Amino acid sequence: MSLLVIGTVAFDAIETPFGKTDKIIGGAATYISVSASYFHKNINLVSVVGEDFPKQTIEMLQSKGISTEGLQIKQGEKTFFWSGRYHEDMNSRDTLDTQLNVLADFNPIIPEAYQDCEFLMLGNLSPSVQQQVIKGLRNRPKLIVMDTMNFWMDIALPELTETIGMVDVLTVNDAEARQLTGEYSLIKAARKILAMGPKYLIIKKGEHGALLFHGDNVFYAPALPLEDVFDPTGAGDTFAGGFIGYLSSTRDISFESMKRAVIYGSAMASFCVEKFGLERIQNLSQGELEERLQQFVDLVQFEITLV
Amino acid sequence: MSLLVIGTVAFDAIETPFGKTDKIIGGAATYISVSASYFHKNINLVSVVGEDFPKQTIEMLQSKGISTEGLQIKQGEKTFFWSGRYHEDMNSRDTLDTQLNVLADFNPIIPEAYQDCEFLMLGNLSPSVQQQVIKGLRNRPKLIVMDTMNFWMDIALPELTETIGMVDVLTVNDAEARQLTGEYSLIKAARKILAMGPKYLIIKKGEHGALLFHGDNVFYAPALPLEDVFDPTGAGDTFAGGFIGYLSSTRDISFESMKRAVIYGSAMASFCVEKFGLERIQNLSQGELEERLQQFVDLVQFEITLV
Repeated sequence: MSLLVIGTVAFDAIETPFGKTDKIIGGAATYISVSASYFHKNINLVSVVGEDFPKQTIEMLQSKGISTEGLQIKQGEKTFFWSGRYHEDMNSRDTLDTQLNVLADFNPIIPEAYQDCEFLMLGNLSPSVQQQVIKGLRNRPKLIVMDTMNFWMDIALPELTETIGMVDVLTVNDAEARQLTGEYSLIKAARKILAMGPKYLIIKKGEHGALLFHGDNVFYAPALPLEDVFDPTGAGDTFAGGFIGYLSSTRDISFESMKRAVIYGSAMASFCVEKFGLERIQNLSQGELEERLQQFVDLVQFEITLV
Repeated sequence: MSLLVIGTVAFDAIETPFGKTDKIIGGAATYISVSASYFHKNINLVSVVGEDFPKQTIEMLQSKGISTEGLQIKQGEKTFFWSGRYHEDMNSRDTLDTQLNVLADFNPIIPEAYQDCEFLMLGNLSPSVQQQVIKGLRNRPKLIVMDTMNFWMDIALPELTETIGMVDVLTVNDAEARQLTGEYSLIKAARKILAMGPKYLIIKKGEHGALLFHGDNVFYAPALPLEDVFDPTGAGDTFAGGFIGYLSSTRDISFESMKRAVIYGSAMASFCVEKFGLERIQNLSQGELEERLQQFVDLVQFEITLV
C-alpha cells in the first residue's frame, strides 16, 4: 500500500536575514516526499517540471524510495520558480517573483501503478487540480490530507471550499484559518473548518508549534525552540511529510496516532529550518531523528498526579 | 514557612474588543496572592494603597488566607491607577493613563511576622524597591522569583540588572527577553539572561504558552486554546501566583517540580483571561481547577516509544 504525494516540484530563490540563495530545489511535493521517506518506503510522486530540472535531483528522490514515474518532464518548458524574502521575525515574507511556467496548465496524470494508494497527500496546489487527483483515483484512499494557502482563498474560494469538503485532514497556518473562517479565535475557526467536512484539522503556528483538532479534542505540539531559524521555506511541507509518512508507515489513523504523527512532523520541520532548502533534511541519520524526538518528549512531558 | 508577595495593589480601567470596565481592582500583588491562595495558605502581602481602596477587597484577600498586615493604607492619598486598551489580537495594548499616586514614594515595610518567609515573589515594581525587600529580609529566602517589565529596561536598566542578579527565577515576556538581551532568538536570549544570575528563567508568550529555561534544559508549557481571550490583564501575575503558590506548597524546587509549577501557573492564567479583572479567579472550585489541569495534560501528552 502506497503513499501518493502531489504538489509542486520547483526552484526557489530565498533571502533571509542570514543569507541568500541562488536557484535551489524547492516545491511542496519535494519537501513532503523527502520528509515522508524517513518513515515510509513506498512513495509515489505526481508533479511536473521543465527540461531545466536537474536529473541528479530526480535521482536523489529515487534513491529515497520515491517513485518519479508520475513526475512529468515537459520538454521545451521551464520549472515553476518562486522567489521570496523573509522579514526579521521569519514569520512573514514577501514574494519577489513567481513564474508559473509548467504549472500554468498542469494536468496531473496518475500512473496505473499508483492506483493502489492508501494515503494521499495533496500538497499546496490549485484546489481544482487537487480535486482532479481525488477524482482520478479508482478507490478513495483511507486518508486524504490536504494543504492549501491564502492565495486560493483569495482567488478560488468556491473550488477550495468544495475540495476541503472531500478530505479527511486539512492543514493551514493560523492566519489562513482566520481568513478562511473570519474568526480570530482559533477554537472557533477550527469548529467552522471541521464543519466544512474534514474530520481533522491541523493549524500550523510556525515557531509557536501546531494544533491538531478532532471533534472537541485538541492536541498541541510545540515547535522546538531553536538557536536560529535559518530558513523557514518548506517547513510546513516538511511537517506534512513527516505527518503523513508516519501515518502511512503505521496505517493507524486513530487520534492517538495522529498526535504522534504531529510530533514526527514537528521534529522533521525543526530540522528543515536549520539550513537553506532541502539541505538539512536530505541526509538525516536515524540517530539524529531519534535524538530530536527525545527533545520533543523532554520539552513537553511533565508528571502531575490528579486525584 | 510563608510565601511573601510584594507588588502593586491597584485600580485598573480596561478596554478590550469585548467590552470596557469602570475602575476595577487590579495590581500585580493582588493577582499573584489570589492565584497563589489556591495552593498555599500562608501568604503575606506587602504593598500600598490609598484611603480610597475598598475595605471589602482587603477582607476578600484575608478570607483567602492572605495576611494584609504589610498592606500600607495611606490616609489622604489615592491608590495606584492604570488604564489601558487592548488591540484586537489581545497581544498588544496601549496605556491610556497611569496615576502613580501612593506608589510614587512607596517604601515597603516588612512586618516582623513576615520575616520567616521561605518563598519570595517580587511582583513587577521598580527594581530598587524589589531590591529593598530582598535586603530587608534577615534570611535569604529559599527561592526568590522576580517579575519585571520593559518599562524598567527603558528607565532603570542598571538597577534592574543588579536586581536580576540577586534572584533565582526571572519571569519576562518574549518581547522583554529580546529587549533585555538584544537577541531575537529566545534560546540565545535565555542563555544571556541566565548568565546574569538567575538559575531559572520563564519566558511568557501569552496565547503561545511559556518556556522554562534551566541550564541547557527547556520546558514548554502551552497556553490552553480558548474560545475567547476576554481580558489578558493580570494573566502574567496570575501565572506567577500559581507558579510560586504551587512551589511553596510543595517546597520542592527541583526542575521537575518547576515544570509542574509552570503548568499550574498556566492553568490559573487560563482562567484569568476568561473574564475581566479578578472576576474569574476569585471563586474557583477545586473541581474546576482539576478539570483545567486535566485539559493541560490532554493537550500535550503523547506516547512515543523510542528505541
